[in-house]
This record gives sequence, structure tokens and C-alpha cells, in this order.
Amino acid sequence: MNVIVDLCVVPLGVGTSVSLYVAECHKVLTRAGLKTHLHAYGTNIEGEYDAVFAAIKECHQAVHALGAPRITTTIKLGTRTDREQSMEDKVQSVKDKLSKP
Amino acid sequence: MNVIVDLCVVPLGVGTSVSLYVAECHKVLTRAGLKTHLHAYGTNIEGEYDAVFAAIKECHQAVHALGAPRITTTIKLGTRTDREQSMEDKVQSVKDKLSKP
Amino acid sequence: MNVIVDLCVVPLGVGTSVSLYVAECHKVLTRAGLKTHLHAYGTNIEGEYDAVFAAIKECHQAVHALGAPRITTTIKLGTRTDREQSMEDKVQSVKDKLSKP
Amino acid sequence: MNVIVDLCVVPLGVGTSVSLYVAECHKVLTRAGLKTHLHAYGTNIEGEYDAVFAAIKECHQAVHALGAPRITTTIKLGTRTDREQSMEDKVQSVKDKLSKP
Repeated sequence: MNVIVDLCVVPLGVGTSVSLYVAECHKVLTRAGLKTHLHAYGTNIEGEYDAVFAAIKECHQAVHALGAPRITTTIKLGTRTDREQSMEDKVQSVKDKLSKP
Repeated sequence: MNVIVDLCVVPLGVGTSVSLYVAECHKVLTRAGLKTHLHAYGTNIEGEYDAVFAAIKECHQAVHALGAPRITTTIKLGTRTDREQSMEDKVQSVKDKLSKP
Repeated sequence: MNVIVDLCVVPLGVGTSVSLYVAECHKVLTRAGLKTHLHAYGTNIEGEYDAVFAAIKECHQAVHALGAPRITTTIKLGTRTDREQSMEDKVQSVKDKLSKP
Repeated sequence: MNVIVDLCVVPLGVGTSVSLYVAECHKVLTRAGLKTHLHAYGTNIEGEYDAVFAAIKECHQAVHALGAPRITTTIKLGTRTDREQSMEDKVQSVKDKLSKP
């Protein structure tokens, strides 16, 4: 099952700067061979369900290992059976609509 | 890794009533032996990471099998290493604060 | 525009215990006269759009005033024009489906 | 109160293609003068709280007007009092961490 996911990992108990932990997650996702796109409030991920959620588990383990005693994460998860669709397709589809008069 | 999760599965392409699909997910989660609490905008789930996310995958498969060609799901995922905490603990902790003058 | 909302306010920079801040938000929502239901990963809210989002703004102001320098909040927002539906209706609709053989 | 928001509007009851409705929201946000960045699972928005949530209300009204009888939206909302931070700052901060050996 191919999925498009949006992931936002928030460590608690480590002050207000979270970029170190987000960067660590990015390394985990990259090592897992997943396609990613970083934005200002999370990371888009594309891949197989099992690979994506194994990597998200590893993100939590890595962020705890870096010293965060608590983590709250928000995930959006999209699947479809009617057709294949990549992350780029989703963005392009909206841009196509916007470019029409 | 024990997790507390909030799950909101939204089927697309099947009209505006989604309760049939939410009920199907509830059955999947119950069969998986997970602790759940249904509320007005999702379901709280408590369990081991691997069991919870295997069940969520099965929810998507079951909702597609019921005829939904597309699904968008929102998940909140909490883990902590500082102490154990159940779903009931979380609610009680807020109620304790509210009951103080 | 009537809305059903799910609100989860997470203060950063104040350690790992967040119940004090969630309780403060609960007081703000109650004072605003909104219908609420507290669960293990957030609060269901029902009311008019403007009243609900004025109260959520006040929640952020109150949590900052309590000492949290950063807040990240997750909100689900539902509206419909086909029929009226309360928070209780949503839960009951799923329970009805579950009780059928 | 300056906010960074992530918005994902999902119309129900209009089939599986949602890009038309996302494009309509994009037009609403642009007309409102808000800074936006479209990604594969939502739109980052930066602006004043009141302006952003007035625009999100208008998005729901516009999507209903286009024929969607039900909408479920996911919003992430970030505020901070310790320092100013733009959407670009957030992404750059993670990239800086990633570029260090």
C-alpha cells in the first residue's frame, strides 16, 4: 500500500528550539530511502506503508535518544485505490487549476 | 514502545456519511485487542507501536474494501520515556487541575 | 456557521507536563460558553465559528501568559451544509452502526 | 498575534478529486494578502491570527459554495513569544542542522 504522509514531530521537555530534532528525523527518513519534502510545518513523505511507519517509529526512538523525554507527533496519511498519485502530482494538480482563467 | 494515538479516518468518494467506515475501523481496532475510546472527532487508542500501526493499516484496507477509493487520515501520536501514562491518566490529570480552586 | 472542532494545545519550553495548560484552555472555553468534551488527546468543541476561534486565540494568549514561550496546536474543523449534527450525533451514529449485527 | 499555520481542507461528498477546492482556497488566501506555500499535503500560511482565521472561514464558505456539502479540515497553529520566526526561518533552521557534519 503506497502512502503519502505528512509528518510533524514535536519534542517536549527540551526547550523551544526543535530544529535539531526535526533534522534528526530527516536523517532517519533519508537513510530509510524515503522520498521527502521539508516544509515550514512538517515533512511530506512518500513510500510503502510499512517502510514509512517503521521509519516514523525510528524517528521517535532517535528523538528520545537525543534527550527528549516526551514527543507529540501529528501525521496525515493518504491512500487511494483509484489511481497512482505522487507528491508532485498533488501539487501540480492544484497549480493546474490555479493557472486556468 | 507504548503509544497513545488519536485516529480520524476520512473516506472520500463515498458521499457525506462516514459513520459506516468509522464503525468498520472500530471493529478492526477491537479485534486487534487495542484499548480505544470513541469521541466526536476521532478515536483514542492505546497500545504498542507495532500493533497500533498494523491495525491502522488494516483500517485503511477495510475502508477501501468497503468501497472508498480514497482515504485521508489524521493521526496524533504520543510517546514518553519519563513515565508511564494511560489515556485515563491524561484526562484525570487535567480534571485534577480543574477541580483545584 | 456552526462548527465541530477538535483542539489539542501543546506548550513548548515548559517541561513535559502539559495538563496545567490544557486545564487553563478548558477554563477559557467554558467561560466562552462553548460546549466541550475532554478526551485523552484533545477537546471536542461545538459552537459558532467566530466564537470558537476567538476562544482558541484566547487559549493561546492564556497559555503564553502562564509562561509558555511557544505553542503548537492541532485543530480539526468540521462544517456541513446538508444537515445539522451535534457532537453527540456523531458518536451515536457510529455506535448505531456498531450495534447492528 | 503572528501565527504560522498549516491548512488542509478536505471536501466530502464531491468525489475523490479535491484539487479544484484546494485551488479555490488558495485564491481566497491570496486575495486576503496572506503569505502561503503550497505543499503535497496542505498549505503553510503566515499572518496575523485574526486575518488567517477570517480567511479560513472564507475558504469553508467558498468550498461549500462550490458544491461540497461537508468539509473536514486539519489545521496546525504555531505561536511564539520568545522571538520572531518566519516560515523560511523554520525550514532554514532545519537545513542548517542538516548541513553540519
